[in-house]
Amino acid sequence: MSTDDPIHDLHRGGKLSVESRVALSPDTLAMAYTPGVAEVCRTVARDPASAWDFTIKGTSIAVVTDGSAVLGLGNIGPLAALPVMEGKAALFRVFGGVNAYPICLDTQDAGEIIQCVKHLAPIFGGINLEDISAPRCFEIEERLDAELSIPVFHDDQHGTAIVVLAALENALRLRSGTIANIRVAISGAGAAGIAIAGILTDAGVGELVLCDSRGIVSRGRADLNPYKQKFAASESGGLTDAVRGADVFIGVSAPAILTSDMVQTMRPRPIIFALSNPTPEIMPEELQGSDAIIATGRSDYPNQINNVLAFPGVFKGALSARLQAITPAMRHKAARALASLVADQELASGRIIPSVFDPRVAGAVAAAVCEV
Amino acid sequence: MSTDDPIHDLHRGGKLSVESRVALSPDTLAMAYTPGVAEVCRTVARDPASAWDFTIKGTSIAVVTDGSAVLGLGNIGPLAALPVMEGKAALFRVFGGVNAYPICLDTQDAGEIIQCVKHLAPIFGGINLEDISAPRCFEIEERLDAELSIPVFHDDQHGTAIVVLAALENALRLRSGTIANIRVAISGAGAAGIAIAGILTDAGVGELVLCDSRGIVSRGRADLNPYKQKFAASESGGLTDAVRGADVFIGVSAPAILTSDMVQTMRPRPIIFALSNPTPEIMPEELQGSDAIIATGRSDYPNQINNVLAFPGVFKGALSARLQAITPAMRHKAARALASLVADQELASGRIIPSVFDPRVAGAVAAAVCEV
Repeated sequence: MSTDDPIHDLHRGGKLSVESRVALSPDTLAMAYTPGVAEVCRTVARDPASAWDFTIKGTSIAVVTDGSAVLGLGNIGPLAALPVMEGKAALFRVFGGVNAYPICLDTQDAGEIIQCVKHLAPIFGGINLEDISAPRCFEIEERLDAELSIPVFHDDQHGTAIVVLAALENALRLRSGTIANIRVAISGAGAAGIAIAGILTDAGVGELVLCDSRGIVSRGRADLNPYKQKFAASESGGLTDAVRGADVFIGVSAPAILTSDMVQTMRPRPIIFALSNPTPEIMPEELQGSDAIIATGRSDYPNQINNVLAFPGVFKGALSARLQAITPAMRHKAARALASLVADQELASGRIIPSVFDPRVAGAVAAAVCEV
Repeated sequence: MSTDDPIHDLHRGGKLSVESRVALSPDTLAMAYTPGVAEVCRTVARDPASAWDFTIKGTSIAVVTDGSAVLGLGNIGPLAALPVMEGKAALFRVFGGVNAYPICLDTQDAGEIIQCVKHLAPIFGGINLEDISAPRCFEIEERLDAELSIPVFHDDQHGTAIVVLAALENALRLRSGTIANIRVAISGAGAAGIAIAGILTDAGVGELVLCDSRGIVSRGRADLNPYKQKFAASESGGLTDAVRGADVFIGVSAPAILTSDMVQTMRPRPIIFALSNPTPEIMPEELQGSDAIIATGRSDYPNQINNVLAFPGVFKGALSARLQAITPAMRHKAARALASLVADQELASGRIIPSVFDPRVAGAVAAAVCEV
């Protein structure tokens, strides 16, 4: 297929290569392959834990998807999801020094996905779930986390939640209010929305109102899955009601659903994280002249809330410490570590989160994850 | 785990790395990952065949095992098999320029293996099956070959068969007799033995006697699986009977089961391929002074019959031509191409097959596979 645009050109031949770490000569061939390799096989057969030392298990994770919720593109399936997973694997290598291989599964049955990942688990030191639609993603993550002895991390949930918490903590350093006395309105109750609600609740948020496409997730509704039920509010209404009087708006939902009129109803110096990609819930231009603290998922505005600030470091740490799970406490520590990379003197409304190219990020997150 | 031998040291950290082919800067990040990557996802969603151009599918294969028949070590399981699969993947890279990733499955149920490989198939351009015990390997290969639109190649069967046929054709150039008027005794009726019997039958071998651990696979036996039945002979007896009067002995079985007395009963200038690894069916030293043409699987004797002469080129060709299957005709052509790399003037009883380090090998095999 011929194309002439730079994006397709960059993708030609794929974005990854699998390389040999051993230069092959007659001598090394007899060690890396038969007959020498048999000694290492015997070692691992006798002592399975030694696979962490002598195989790629100790350095490698799988990036697993079923292609059911890819970027803003929706359910495009495993093959069309592959370019995203390759990109993710490239980021794991470049930012985290981690081997990551895309595993795009040709099934969207939760039971089959779980079985297949369990069959693959021996060769990986961790599983990064990616772009699997809610609510299946919750069941898949929970069951794999319970049944595997390697960490399972759904990046759309926990990567996003870590970076949001870090950015929120820094935004709160810029204005009055602590997390315990703020009201947060979240638009979007999929993987990211539920995980953000979870990490903020764990962090002791004062008041939290979650909205899905039908409005406030409220106790009176009969259409809620168990994951939404956990965060159901006593109030009801639409997104407009949720936002009124809020200190913080966090959007992980759909383009252009927050208006400047709605922002007017928020508390002074509102914090707006409009993370829908590529088109945010509100464009920063619409809030020009206001004192709002604004972040998006985009690289062309200040304060890019991007998961790449979290996932390479999380697995870099998990592999180095051979963690069996990544716990809520570790995720909270990771957020703290990320936030602390913005020093008091550089903290500003356009600088609440480090750059994705800040070379300290992955190491700081990795250290935080291992510390717990 | 600490060790101080060079083989374990070479394996520390694993033998493979997954690298990004794209240098990541702010510009390329926005193309290789969000938002730019979405354009490539849309292209692939619209035209799945374009994945061969724009993803690693077109350059990558899986090396799949269940760890049930690893080298001479037997059923050591998927984790202990990983060092071998990593070595194999390294050989695919170094000799064939192919990305190969080890997929060691934690199940030995044929149905589960088949289902799992089918779920993984979108991201690979080919499947190399490895070290799966017979007779399950036949069923797994046949069903995957029938149900997938990418080539499936069980290297223990077909890689071995290709190299054996190449070596045999060259050995026959050194003595009187054509393949149509020779008697071949094969010791070993597992994956390799059955596949060698198949390729020799397709090549028109005069007489073929297959032996398993109970002796000649003969029509009278009630204990044969369908794969052995296909090659059942009218004669019966033990290995000694099979070898008597044979022109060729091919061993893919067990150490030291062929004696020099048995070789004495063979036709003049016998051809002996003693491929059991690391200890052959007969050590070449025992035939010193005879005019036998001898090959082994070892690198420390002349005539190393090693699958690495076949598999990198087979998949190099299959990926470049986007083959949907690797047919018997292609395997036969590959053997011919391999044999023809030994020119008349260099052909000798110690030189019937090219060196694994001969840089022409993979290209010649790849071209042969594509030619059909």
